[in-house]
Amino acid sequence: MAPSSPFQDTDETRTALMQATYDALCEHGYAGLTIQRISDEFPKSKSLIYQHYDGKDELLVAFLGFMIEHFENEVPIDTSKNASEQLQAPLDHLLVPTFEEDRYEFMSAMIELRAQASHNEAYREHFTKTDQLFHRQLTAVLRTGIEHGEFRAVDPEQTAELLLTVLDGAIFRRMTTDGSPDIQALRAELNEYIHSRILIGDNGSE
Amino acid sequence: MAPSSPFQDTDETRTALMQATYDALCEHGYAGLTIQRISDEFPKSKSLIYQHYDGKDELLVAFLGFMIEHFENEVPIDTSKNASEQLQAPLDHLLVPTFEEDRYEFMSAMIELRAQASHNEAYREHFTKTDQLFHRQLTAVLRTGIEHGEFRAVDPEQTAELLLTVLDGAIFRRMTTDGSPDIQALRAELNEYIHSRILIGDNGSE
Repeated sequence: MAPSSPFQDTDETRTALMQATYDALCEHGYAGLTIQRISDEFPKSKSLIYQHYDGKDELLVAFLGFMIEHFENEVPIDTSKNASEQLQAPLDHLLVPTFEEDRYEFMSAMIELRAQASHNEAYREHFTKTDQLFHRQLTAVLRTGIEHGEFRAVDPEQTAELLLTVLDGAIFRRMTTDGSPDIQALRAELNEYIHSRILIGDNGSE
Repeated sequence: MAPSSPFQDTDETRTALMQATYDALCEHGYAGLTIQRISDEFPKSKSLIYQHYDGKDELLVAFLGFMIEHFENEVPIDTSKNASEQLQAPLDHLLVPTFEEDRYEFMSAMIELRAQASHNEAYREHFTKTDQLFHRQLTAVLRTGIEHGEFRAVDPEQTAELLLTVLDGAIFRRMTTDGSPDIQALRAELNEYIHSRILIGDNGSE
């Protein structure tokens, strides 16, 4: 916690390094990532990186922490939308027919990083936190919808568990196969589930 | 296809090597796997391994091929069971509260291998094939259930897409977090989905 630390003194340097890590990940993937390649994207001195991080994995854990701050701070629940629209938002964001190249590369790197979590405690701790964060966000949307009379009286935590599993499973299948899942079919079936189990006032409503 | 190849001549040698690969994967995980460690589990000469495989990744792709043959040949649809029981079987197999240590290690290695698929064509080809195989198996069970009047007239391919995504997502979340998903909650919600959308004669049946 020395006050001389540039990353603690200036958010700007930290942000620039995180941006460089993001860019290098998109370009080279996890396996092709090196400190040199991150440095190539970083406008400041490479020695600044080594001053703070022992290597690629330590820097990546910091990067993941930076990303989760972004998700916590920058993706608040949009209260101008009703609960049904809030529930559709992550589906619209993740279950799309195609990803642009940069986004594809980034998602692919995230899958590779997350797979490390099965044997790496620091990664595991991070992905447990993000998993819990997304579960809390989905649970909150479901709870709001129930309170506002838009959703049936489902168990919000249990329902969020299924929704999050579908979103994670869809990304995992997509990034590790050619052409699976059929996103249109998956989305159609997920809508059937949402209409028959969650929404009030649709076909089969109570 | 030279007849002198010991792996083409004797299934026994190939099986022993695949068993050794399995054992080494369970013990050391993907990251800790080396040809030496596979050889330590292999009762025959290490040179036999190098005679056929250039390195760890080539051997692992062969191993994955071996595993898929097993799934195709050894896990036929059990026609002594009705379609509902057949549909529950993969859920009972995969959505259990705990995995034994060997199985945990193996599943964890499979997640690490599958994550390679996002940047490795040979792995990608393999996991596309397994994904399609499991999708076909689920679709066949759904089709049988519809024909036998056990299931509603759902779109079997679309429904299989959601089920397979849930199974893959559950494994992926489980192997990369501490304690997610809540398997009991996930299973309960999946049962709600199956009862309300697929099964005839349950609550809310048509």
